[in-house]
Amino acid sequence: MDALKNSIPENMLAIRQHEPDGKLVVETILVPQPGRGEVLVKMAASPINPSDLALLKGRYMNRSYPFTPGLEGSGVVVDSGGGVLARMRKGKKVACTPNPEGDGSWAEFMLTSAMRTIPLPASITLEQGAMTVVNPMTAMAFLHMAKTGKHPAMVNNAAASSLGKMLIRLCADQKIPLINIVRNPAHVMELKNLGATYVLNSQDKSFETELFALAAKLGTTLFLDALSGPHTYQLLQAAPPRSTLVVYARLAGESMQINSGYLIRRDIKIMGFQLGNWLQTKGILFKLTLIRQVKKQLGKTLSSHIRQTFSLEDVEMAISDYTQSMSSGKVLLLIKP
Amino acid sequence: MDALKNSIPENMLAIRQHEPDGKLVVETILVPQPGRGEVLVKMAASPINPSDLALLKGRYMNRSYPFTPGLEGSGVVVDSGGGVLARMRKGKKVACTPNPEGDGSWAEFMLTSAMRTIPLPASITLEQGAMTVVNPMTAMAFLHMAKTGKHPAMVNNAAASSLGKMLIRLCADQKIPLINIVRNPAHVMELKNLGATYVLNSQDKSFETELFALAAKLGTTLFLDALSGPHTYQLLQAAPPRSTLVVYARLAGESMQINSGYLIRRDIKIMGFQLGNWLQTKGILFKLTLIRQVKKQLGKTLSSHIRQTFSLEDVEMAISDYTQSMSSGKVLLLIKP
Repeated sequence: MDALKNSIPENMLAIRQHEPDGKLVVETILVPQPGRGEVLVKMAASPINPSDLALLKGRYMNRSYPFTPGLEGSGVVVDSGGGVLARMRKGKKVACTPNPEGDGSWAEFMLTSAMRTIPLPASITLEQGAMTVVNPMTAMAFLHMAKTGKHPAMVNNAAASSLGKMLIRLCADQKIPLINIVRNPAHVMELKNLGATYVLNSQDKSFETELFALAAKLGTTLFLDALSGPHTYQLLQAAPPRSTLVVYARLAGESMQINSGYLIRRDIKIMGFQLGNWLQTKGILFKLTLIRQVKKQLGKTLSSHIRQTFSLEDVEMAISDYTQSMSSGKVLLLIKP
Repeated sequence: MDALKNSIPENMLAIRQHEPDGKLVVETILVPQPGRGEVLVKMAASPINPSDLALLKGRYMNRSYPFTPGLEGSGVVVDSGGGVLARMRKGKKVACTPNPEGDGSWAEFMLTSAMRTIPLPASITLEQGAMTVVNPMTAMAFLHMAKTGKHPAMVNNAAASSLGKMLIRLCADQKIPLINIVRNPAHVMELKNLGATYVLNSQDKSFETELFALAAKLGTTLFLDALSGPHTYQLLQAAPPRSTLVVYARLAGESMQINSGYLIRRDIKIMGFQLGNWLQTKGILFKLTLIRQVKKQLGKTLSSHIRQTFSLEDVEMAISDYTQSMSSGKVLLLIKP
């Protein structure tokens, strides 16, 4: 008499990759069965994030091949493997992320731990809800770092991204000075209209001087680097003593060239940031508070603009479209009901 | 009736540098007068440390030129500018370091804050006492980091240096596993005889594999990098998740090439270390405890081998001698009484 469970087919379509940097293929595979504490989510939507691209290149997390990509999404819990939380989730509309080394969200169904699902408020669509975790939690993590590290101000060098825009709204809301760096003059006005006070264009001749002066004036000691490569060095040059530089993506380059004298003389720290690693160091109460805060802001400061949607089968087209303009909105995969 | 004070001449000899990387000249300058809380030390001995070389190249700390180099030494306090501590130091044999942007120890007299002098036990010679601060405190700082950071083991890639040897003795004493890296086969046995358990030669073909395996086996998560440049990358390759890499000198190269993906995926931190910056973040009680611990170990785990001594006038010869073989013992400047 379990209508939800009876609706689950034996097989499903899933995007699969067979080797790092390999082609993405749509394959028919078995629908997995949840174990204790786990749930099966019938997927509705899933975004393409920069971390997905890194994962497809085989350099973000460990995966055994073949595997299903997709690091977050939304859907409805159609089965539970038992346990209090898993049972409570059944029938719920949720945001979800895959298990640490498990198959991902670019499929008709995803198996994951009940702990990795977040019930969505009725007011949030499945499309918006699909982007609950990666960007919103990362933005909140940066805000948390700024507050606990007592950084008077921070810099983000990928300010026109969806994450960058969330950070602008969050910082405006909480009165934390944020220096935004873009490389397209059109983004300067766009970000100011969103509430950004400081926007610098890295293509301006005076960029380095302006960044240095502004960072000094605001006492900026937290530098968020999504680009890596030569951009890391640019940030470091503007970093006052006792600054922390957080590398959270490497959109622009493989490796960074660092003058170690800067680090020694100015007592500067560089640290890698990956949301999963960061959350792993936090206790359950912290995570629950974070989730509550994110849910409150979902339709507001933490919303994302959806630029385009594609079907699961068109994933390669979706990726191509996304990478052509990562700062003009999110690209979503919609899974047919 | 103050014999000590009456013995102070109006002028003194001091080593002076007039620009970064500039020639060192012996000049006659005025003996400075201590202000409140300050003392005047009649210098006896002063070592050449790697940090002195960096300072002479103009890239370690800010200095206004001309200035007197020398970041530590020993002598007798001959005058005080008043204040309880300064008065207490008068007549005492002390180890001393210069004020943050003040003139240094390579002179007949040095003015410094009374807080920057450490009375030496009678059993310690002025020669040994001249090396009380820079290396011993740095070694103790690394030990402190290992303990408070709960690092099960650490690596040092300049193991044959005076600091490296202190670290070997301290770690043997406190049963903290330490992986020592040298680049001269002769140093392997030398360090084992000092009490080192793990010594790797970076010139061996299998070095990187061995370092990786040993670091993993010991759960090494603290990497001390004195070389920078390509060596930093070698250490990072062997660094397990959640490791910290501390760059404390750059004996081998200007800048380091870092794969930012390592930092992100493995949650790795890189931080610069300079003793002065580090001490500045600590309270007075911590510093007093540290000084007490250093004094206890001065003739023992924290002693340095003196290879050669030179007079103040022969400073350039002394530097040339020191840089030719930085791992075979300290070179000291002796100031004529």
